[in-house]
Amino acid sequence: MKKVSDSTVLRLSLYRRHLREFQDQGRLTVSSGDLAARAGTTAAQVRKDLSVFGTFGKRGLGYPVAELAGALRDILGLRRPWRVAVVGTGRIGGALMGYREFRSEGFHIVLGFDADPDKVGSTIQGIPVRSDDDMERELVEREIDIVIVAVPAGAAQRVVDRAVGVGARAILNFAPVALEVPEGVALRTVNMAVELEGLSYALAEARRDAHRGGE
Amino acid sequence: MKKVSDSTVLRLSLYRRHLREFQDQGRLTVSSGDLAARAGTTAAQVRKDLSVFGTFGKRGLGYPVAELAGALRDILGLRRPWRVAVVGTGRIGGALMGYREFRSEGFHIVLGFDADPDKVGSTIQGIPVRSDDDMERELVEREIDIVIVAVPAGAAQRVVDRAVGVGARAILNFAPVALEVPEGVALRTVNMAVELEGLSYALAEARRDAHRGGE
Repeated sequence: MKKVSDSTVLRLSLYRRHLREFQDQGRLTVSSGDLAARAGTTAAQVRKDLSVFGTFGKRGLGYPVAELAGALRDILGLRRPWRVAVVGTGRIGGALMGYREFRSEGFHIVLGFDADPDKVGSTIQGIPVRSDDDMERELVEREIDIVIVAVPAGAAQRVVDRAVGVGARAILNFAPVALEVPEGVALRTVNMAVELEGLSYALAEARRDAHRGGE
Repeated sequence: MKKVSDSTVLRLSLYRRHLREFQDQGRLTVSSGDLAARAGTTAAQVRKDLSVFGTFGKRGLGYPVAELAGALRDILGLRRPWRVAVVGTGRIGGALMGYREFRSEGFHIVLGFDADPDKVGSTIQGIPVRSDDDMERELVEREIDIVIVAVPAGAAQRVVDRAVGVGARAILNFAPVALEVPEGVALRTVNMAVELEGLSYALAEARRDAHRGGE
């Protein structure tokens, strides 16, 4: 089996988005160059990425838009809805539970978990909030596919360990911490604050360079 | 000048968060091992990352928590507030304008921009929304440091080009597209949907593997 890199999967995800736009515009075929221009890569890269998964389109005729979009949907596992739980229903977790795009893209948030007794038993955007103590049991019973971790940094690894312990195989982490997962568990991290601090560093460094002058 | 990698800056950002937690707990010193354990790295990596910026603490005594936290705040450019504009005030842009953590961390969103005439002149969470047509002038006049791009994928590169054209040096991109910026411009991308699709791919691939059986 060929092992597909994260950056390839990221590009497949972008191609699928752009194919949908082409579809909305009524285009029937696109060239690898068209896709490459939209996704910020090269035509050769597009052809290479897609060739891993089969033969799409005919040489010189471009890719059939609808067929390729459908194939990417299959490859990316987007044909069926995934069941998602959010652990930690504070500002970030709560905002995610209200984010409608998730559902339209096939990610159904079915449960939240919180350690705060005042929140347990309530709903957020119609989604029930359960006790953190019941996490393992509920993850199994409700057949959760993806666990979103939105707890404070210090609590995140423990949540991941507990979820992985009952079979969780996909984690989306919003806590500002580098988490460890065993092999076979997929982990992605989203952290706006850390990205912003990366920009802050770059701006500060540019100013320091300017003050240093011609050194 | 030593060039510091993005992954080093990411770790500095994590160290600072954990130092603040140690500070809140009343700790006066921490070892490189303590910091490493929290940030998911090794003690040697912590020492190496920090040594780029100076000598902190004494051998065998650990790092002084408050001093190191302050130094990292300087290094990361977090001592002063940065002025931020959000281009595109739809669901994501609008949510960002209401995200209070930004302000408490020193990122002040001072303006939004939108192409929709119905939104121009309104406010979101008290922040004025200006016309997209005035973006270049406003970015300069309001001395914007960081531009957050929250427009649809097809419009994102054009927004970046226009902002960079009037001197923007730091871009935080939420559009699902790979953007190009000239050298000297810092670009970070946050994309939940793409990360979720990466997880979806991993789950789908695991199922495909299972169906393939012992192949």
